[in-house]
Amino acid sequence: MIPLPAAREAARFRSVLLRKSGDAAMTKTNTGNFFEDFRLGQEITHATPRTLTDGDSALYTALYGSRFALNCSDAFAEKIGFPQAPVDDLLVFHTVFGKTVPDISLNAVANLGYAGGVFGAPVFPGDTLSARSQVIGLKENSNRKTGVVYVKTTGSNARGEEVLRYVRWVMVRKRDEAAKAAEEQIPNLPGAVAAAELRNPNGIKIGGYDRTAAGSRHVWEDYAPGERIDHVDGMTIEEAEHQLATRLYQNTARVHFNQHAEAQGRFGKRLVYGGHVISIARSLSFNGLANAFRIAAINGGQHVNPVFAGDTIYAWSEVLERLELPGRRDVGALRLRTVAAKNRACADFPYKGADGKHATEVVLDFDYTALMPRRG
Amino acid sequence: MIPLPAAREAARFRSVLLRKSGDAAMTKTNTGNFFEDFRLGQEITHATPRTLTDGDSALYTALYGSRFALNCSDAFAEKIGFPQAPVDDLLVFHTVFGKTVPDISLNAVANLGYAGGVFGAPVFPGDTLSARSQVIGLKENSNRKTGVVYVKTTGSNARGEEVLRYVRWVMVRKRDEAAKAAEEQIPNLPGAVAAAELRNPNGIKIGGYDRTAAGSRHVWEDYAPGERIDHVDGMTIEEAEHQLATRLYQNTARVHFNQHAEAQGRFGKRLVYGGHVISIARSLSFNGLANAFRIAAINGGQHVNPVFAGDTIYAWSEVLERLELPGRRDVGALRLRTVAAKNRACADFPYKGADGKHATEVVLDFDYTALMPRRG
Amino acid sequence: MIPLPAAREAARFRSVLLRKSGDAAMTKTNTGNFFEDFRLGQEITHATPRTLTDGDSALYTALYGSRFALNCSDAFAEKIGFPQAPVDDLLVFHTVFGKTVPDISLNAVANLGYAGGVFGAPVFPGDTLSARSQVIGLKENSNRKTGVVYVKTTGSNARGEEVLRYVRWVMVRKRDEAAKAAEEQIPNLPGAVAAAELRNPNGIKIGGYDRTAAGSRHVWEDYAPGERIDHVDGMTIEEAEHQLATRLYQNTARVHFNQHAEAQGRFGKRLVYGGHVISIARSLSFNGLANAFRIAAINGGQHVNPVFAGDTIYAWSEVLERLELPGRRDVGALRLRTVAAKNRACADFPYKGADGKHATEVVLDFDYTALMPRRG
Repeated sequence: MIPLPAAREAARFRSVLLRKSGDAAMTKTNTGNFFEDFRLGQEITHATPRTLTDGDSALYTALYGSRFALNCSDAFAEKIGFPQAPVDDLLVFHTVFGKTVPDISLNAVANLGYAGGVFGAPVFPGDTLSARSQVIGLKENSNRKTGVVYVKTTGSNARGEEVLRYVRWVMVRKRDEAAKAAEEQIPNLPGAVAAAELRNPNGIKIGGYDRTAAGSRHVWEDYAPGERIDHVDGMTIEEAEHQLATRLYQNTARVHFNQHAEAQGRFGKRLVYGGHVISIARSLSFNGLANAFRIAAINGGQHVNPVFAGDTIYAWSEVLERLELPGRRDVGALRLRTVAAKNRACADFPYKGADGKHATEVVLDFDYTALMPRRG
Repeated sequence: MIPLPAAREAARFRSVLLRKSGDAAMTKTNTGNFFEDFRLGQEITHATPRTLTDGDSALYTALYGSRFALNCSDAFAEKIGFPQAPVDDLLVFHTVFGKTVPDISLNAVANLGYAGGVFGAPVFPGDTLSARSQVIGLKENSNRKTGVVYVKTTGSNARGEEVLRYVRWVMVRKRDEAAKAAEEQIPNLPGAVAAAELRNPNGIKIGGYDRTAAGSRHVWEDYAPGERIDHVDGMTIEEAEHQLATRLYQNTARVHFNQHAEAQGRFGKRLVYGGHVISIARSLSFNGLANAFRIAAINGGQHVNPVFAGDTIYAWSEVLERLELPGRRDVGALRLRTVAAKNRACADFPYKGADGKHATEVVLDFDYTALMPRRG
Repeated sequence: MIPLPAAREAARFRSVLLRKSGDAAMTKTNTGNFFEDFRLGQEITHATPRTLTDGDSALYTALYGSRFALNCSDAFAEKIGFPQAPVDDLLVFHTVFGKTVPDISLNAVANLGYAGGVFGAPVFPGDTLSARSQVIGLKENSNRKTGVVYVKTTGSNARGEEVLRYVRWVMVRKRDEAAKAAEEQIPNLPGAVAAAELRNPNGIKIGGYDRTAAGSRHVWEDYAPGERIDHVDGMTIEEAEHQLATRLYQNTARVHFNQHAEAQGRFGKRLVYGGHVISIARSLSFNGLANAFRIAAINGGQHVNPVFAGDTIYAWSEVLERLELPGRRDVGALRLRTVAAKNRACADFPYKGADGKHATEVVLDFDYTALMPRRG
């Protein structure tokens, strides 16, 4: 681990007002890092370890209505080798992600993408998650006003076991146009996570998997690459809902919470946290993918258009790959693309135009890998 | 139990799009059962067993502000013979009900009524509930477009103990006007649940019941048949609230969540789940019925007018009967009619007009039986 | 304890309608106490003991996004001597406060102030809180329509340990202008709570306090009296949010929930519970006061302007005093004034005008004492 130099530590807590006024009393407010504050190889331990509980899981259910049986039922979970129902994989993702915001993306203009996400040890109520990130890439934009920061983030439980790792890259404002990054580098972004890298099938005993309880008779063998599934339903987002969700994840990005400021901002209104849309899409995907019982990897993801309260989210999925897992005949994995659209049903699978760009109604392009029982 | 024939199982997962396009990839989405898909005597095991936790109870409190001491306080509950505070009876009802929606009422036009509801074993945080239903009646409507489906639903905990049973009947669309039900029958609907059928007084030791903690000095002997109580307060429903509630119950009825689709629908807006209104009315009824500490039976219930976000719910109750419980001098039961109205205070007990029809402001007519301590 | 005379007990449950109609059946509804119903020295045991759980803590996080590590992480809490993460101090305050509403402030015109608040035993998930109050002052207003009621309220856990005590005073309507209070007295209100009266530093082992996890390197020695901190962020309140919060606290004040009635009321709309604003301000104050890990005392507090859904809350704090704790070199206390404003950023610290009155945008003036680690 590369320790933060003292000067860098100080800068993290330097306030805008301080720079304006020189008032020493103003130094205690975190204004976040700007592009030129990051260094290649820098390691950041994020604040606010968080114990997830039954309460968080109940809220997650109320926010998304998710019905994957593994996360809903201790009895179901026990039958396939878990000590109890684990916390939803995306609640783990949002919790770890949220911790990184005050250090990584408080001054972000855009969250550009995710890659290389691998879920590790399952998380159970009572587990305390903490997060740290390493800066793996830096590239100033030609306008000199912003730059792209690439970070690899790791979430761990209190026993030090990794529960999640992923790479994301964000466009971050510069404090000072004249400043330069000490060293620049664009990292090789990981491609789709290979079957051999998936960690969370370990310990699962699929023999006890109850498809009636899970809500679908369709298993791994029934899905074919190229197959597309419209998840049919739509869910309208309310301001109170996305704010409750985003605060639950302790994500402090201002654009989600402050109508007084956003009224003067880019869109004139609050923006919905992109992860909220991922969770809605995953919940809708139960209708067609009910046995995709665990997310094993996030291969890539992009929020391609903004979402606001009042928007209705629909989703569809395409099976990209059917992956065999090393040494397992009982459980396999599907690599899926789930696409979410706003205010537009997905029966005709909206995606990209002839120009290769996402349609304006498309808001999420999410490439992930989920476990599914095999007929064996 | 009458097993589902394989063809019927397949039909459950057949998609509208499949029928239109013949695309085999489209078969995995559940579009719900239509009237002609049901068979007399058919047994359906519903998906998604659900472990209720402290988190669900906290959300229930936040959604309704319910103050019945038994559900709020472990210490209170222990004094009257419970190992801890049980989950609210209506949270149990909504959870069991929610499981039935994907199989019974996804294509419902109207939820016509409830009857014969009996609460069994108390449910505690950590209990996993699952539900199954039997089709006990079928009757096509003369318009050939819809029919009435009568189901008896049973909710059980992971030890196989029954926690709730009830009958409901719903008007369900036909997929094909030309189709006919294989066999029709209108069941004898149960009347009010008799005192001898009530199950949940067992084990209650009323000696430790603390009326000061419960919030009222009025007990069973103080209520008389014919007595009417205005519950005074009103509660305004927000979209985010009823959506959070209905997702918490994993109730997937589309009309509650999708403004984009409902804008073109019957009302031009989302409909509030009827059970949300039952819970509001029960919570308001604390003011006047604070010692009605447990719901023992649901004798009948009807949602007589639709409720939308923005409506303010008021309620009043009439004591229909004072029931002695076999062998108990310490606890009795009251059979109550609780009526909820929208946007109209209930000081003058709005109910039915001269024509015998419910007033347009009345939204709920709910006949239930609650336990209450006796002076002894 | 001075027992309630039987006549007073009866009055508590007498209904407005009863008085109008003489209908005996109407006696069971609580219409709250009016000014002339209170007596000096009167003791009131409030209803509805409440077990706080992980579910309540999760909701609290979702409502405010609070990030103080002690309340977020069992692992963090254990390192400084707690058996697990305690429930947020303000959740304890709101819970105890909520219990008092049906008896003290159902007929209140205004909540005038708080003083002498001292937090005692920490509250953990599973603890059951109950509350009682003593009337310590009564003073009729010259208009004869209202009077001020001063109460000292104590919250306790199921082991009888005090978790919180505070004084508040409210302006309460009279039922009858001609009525008089039996005895009047204006109490000496307590000043700021002295360091020697703070109870909750006991048992804290600050050696294990992890400032990186807590999110700030600034400790007690780094703050100076007179220092002012703008907490930067703003949070917009939605109707669903403040209703969920206020019901979670089982606070039954009607003005928060009933749009149908409030449309005809003072403001034409629902009023946000003042405590909701306190919690938002405390959550915002993390940015600048991240190591103010526990609230030890509420020295005083006033809600100086009304808050409505749609308002965006900002906050700033001033360090009033730096308190040494008897016998402790590892932990100290800061007496802080946190001021919240609506729809106005706080970079210039809005407070009072030349006339000594709070600016119209200022909504909260809150004087409290928080514990903070010392460099030692």
